[in-house]
Amino acid sequence: MGRVSATGNPGSAAGSSLVITGIGELVTNDPGRRRPHDPPDLARLGIVRDAAVVIEAGRVVWVGERSELDGAGADVRIDAEGASVVPGFVDAHAHLVFAGDRAAEFAARMTGVPYAAGGIRTTVAATRAADDRTLRSTTARLVAEMLRQGTTTVEIKSGYGLTTLDESRSLVVAGEFTTETTFLGAHVVAPEFTAALDPVADYVALVTGEMLDACAPHARWVDVFCERGAFDADAARAVLRAGMARGLAPRVHANQLGPGPGVQVAAEVGAASADHCTHLDDADVAALADAGVVATLLPGAELSTRSPYPDARRLLAAGVTVALATDCNPGSSYTSSMPLCIALAVIAMRMTPAEALWSATAGGARSLRREDIGVLAPGARGDLVILDAPSHVHLAYRPGVPLARRVVRGGITAV
Amino acid sequence: MGRVSATGNPGSAAGSSLVITGIGELVTNDPGRRRPHDPPDLARLGIVRDAAVVIEAGRVVWVGERSELDGAGADVRIDAEGASVVPGFVDAHAHLVFAGDRAAEFAARMTGVPYAAGGIRTTVAATRAADDRTLRSTTARLVAEMLRQGTTTVEIKSGYGLTTLDESRSLVVAGEFTTETTFLGAHVVAPEFTAALDPVADYVALVTGEMLDACAPHARWVDVFCERGAFDADAARAVLRAGMARGLAPRVHANQLGPGPGVQVAAEVGAASADHCTHLDDADVAALADAGVVATLLPGAELSTRSPYPDARRLLAAGVTVALATDCNPGSSYTSSMPLCIALAVIAMRMTPAEALWSATAGGARSLRREDIGVLAPGARGDLVILDAPSHVHLAYRPGVPLARRVVRGGITAV
Repeated sequence: MGRVSATGNPGSAAGSSLVITGIGELVTNDPGRRRPHDPPDLARLGIVRDAAVVIEAGRVVWVGERSELDGAGADVRIDAEGASVVPGFVDAHAHLVFAGDRAAEFAARMTGVPYAAGGIRTTVAATRAADDRTLRSTTARLVAEMLRQGTTTVEIKSGYGLTTLDESRSLVVAGEFTTETTFLGAHVVAPEFTAALDPVADYVALVTGEMLDACAPHARWVDVFCERGAFDADAARAVLRAGMARGLAPRVHANQLGPGPGVQVAAEVGAASADHCTHLDDADVAALADAGVVATLLPGAELSTRSPYPDARRLLAAGVTVALATDCNPGSSYTSSMPLCIALAVIAMRMTPAEALWSATAGGARSLRREDIGVLAPGARGDLVILDAPSHVHLAYRPGVPLARRVVRGGITAV
Repeated sequence: MGRVSATGNPGSAAGSSLVITGIGELVTNDPGRRRPHDPPDLARLGIVRDAAVVIEAGRVVWVGERSELDGAGADVRIDAEGASVVPGFVDAHAHLVFAGDRAAEFAARMTGVPYAAGGIRTTVAATRAADDRTLRSTTARLVAEMLRQGTTTVEIKSGYGLTTLDESRSLVVAGEFTTETTFLGAHVVAPEFTAALDPVADYVALVTGEMLDACAPHARWVDVFCERGAFDADAARAVLRAGMARGLAPRVHANQLGPGPGVQVAAEVGAASADHCTHLDDADVAALADAGVVATLLPGAELSTRSPYPDARRLLAAGVTVALATDCNPGSSYTSSMPLCIALAVIAMRMTPAEALWSATAGGARSLRREDIGVLAPGARGDLVILDAPSHVHLAYRPGVPLARRVVRGGITAV
């Protein structure tokens, strides 16, 4: 396998090697593989036909046409039998550390009760009452469910503890499942504070003080729910700046339930991502584009709250980088399915299947400022999905169908 | 297991026995188990808490509270660990015998090209060109995919052959997978006839003559696509009456793309079901109610064609029996997922989770005039789904998530 040795990590005797052949359509997201005659959305996928991929010690070491792969052994060989193979999905927005569910609230909402962020407090009470083992098992179940559907990287937020102890133990649990841990002490104002003279100011003092001290060592990101009924612009700035001073990188829940300052704050602090982006004005769109903030869209939330979807076409037209994520949480969006988000992005938000897939993989990686995922090229992590389909288009064409035939994470066949 | 022997088939030494315990919520759809204090939609599910089910020789022989099940052995025991258990889904409308796919047409439609029934002809050409083995393998793949998602009964239509030979071999293939086979020679006018002076009349003569002769022995049902651009009321009547004269029971594709006579024709001939029912006037709704025709709604088609959903609440208010099905087909609705249809019924069509589940199980059984499925009561077929969830509400609350943990069909754990 000279080609592999030449391009890859010939010395990595550690980890095992995996060769996947018989790939009818390989989506690489590799800018070096843009086919000149494809329309731009498809070109961006860097598709290789009749392809093969070689993974060694958890990293992609070779990608190309099968005919160019010379011979040779591997510890594991998989024949994809003509299927489409895509990078593992990168779910850049999920709330997976909690206890209980809110099925009754969902059923009530479906009969006409509107979604209110206050419902978060139901989950806060259950999360505080749960022991670490319970929190860990819920998170493990959801991460495994995601992996079965092709998600190989997931960001996990705290935000259902809202005390120093409960936020920090939530982040410890999150850290057992991902490096993309996000401190979201500023999810809503903790219930204890609502009787205070200035609940937001008092709670922000806690979040940016003792709670941040306890949480910063366990988090990569700091996040805030900047929305009417949660935290205003000044409070959001305070939370984000305090986290940044402790080395956390900022991301923001912005403009979900109505117009607001969230996106502007995200641009101002240089956030990696503004998430939701459902209610934007022209200045908001321009701010995202100018500041290079990724718009992480969460169509599962709009579906499950019967709300208008974000205007993805307007964002794309303005040159904003769009990511897709599940927002998996027990209140407003209890889906763990990136394929459903892709289908919704295409059907309800008028993204093309190629744009939606890019946003669910490379877009998610941008949202998390990761260059080693969301792409299948030498050096990238060996994260991919062998679809039960000949084309990535099927992810939108076949909504609700479990299309992840096999999922490879870090070079290991996980599903 | 005295209780089992007393209620069930004590003598059936043939088939094996299966006992499922630890059922947190058992949905029986058994009218005898309506709980008086439940609201009507929930009462109809006949829910038993902390339940057990016993299946012998493929049939349910006992259902009740776990505490009432006295002791005893079974060949197979399953502990549902608190999960919700529901009857297997009954998908009463699917087109699974075809070749090729129409991913490119789907992608084009998503950029704004409207759905046209004429696209059926693309699949007709591919189906005619395919050998029986190819047709069989496509059908087998889709039936297996459905089973993995909890569908234990599926109706399968012909309709992509449109010649005597291709329709009859389609039905032979369908019959290898289900007893619910439907002759849909009158899907669209076959392409050979479009140049004729009266294409519809000439093609109907074939469908009701030689084609029916060849197909009737392999079908239980006769169906017609009564729609502008396909078959008008007179043609639909002729097709249905001819089929009925050969012992086939009628069902109709009605009022999908616009207002039309389909529902009235269905009521007039005493069809088991009028399928789609997207564009109805008051007289149509009254006709369905008065004639006892099931309205089989297919929200996957509206989703994938970006069309307005049928008004389920209006139908339910008028006392019409509503079923939910996938319409799985490569053109307008390539989903095989009954759970997605339930989620859409709740979120987009404002059915309650209980109504949607009933319609996807007992409603499907009514649409197929079957009393042995869609219900979990002594004598019914042992078809059920152990959900990865504590409540049936999760089927709508968690859209897109594969929630079928185990699927039992005819008493055998199939998945």
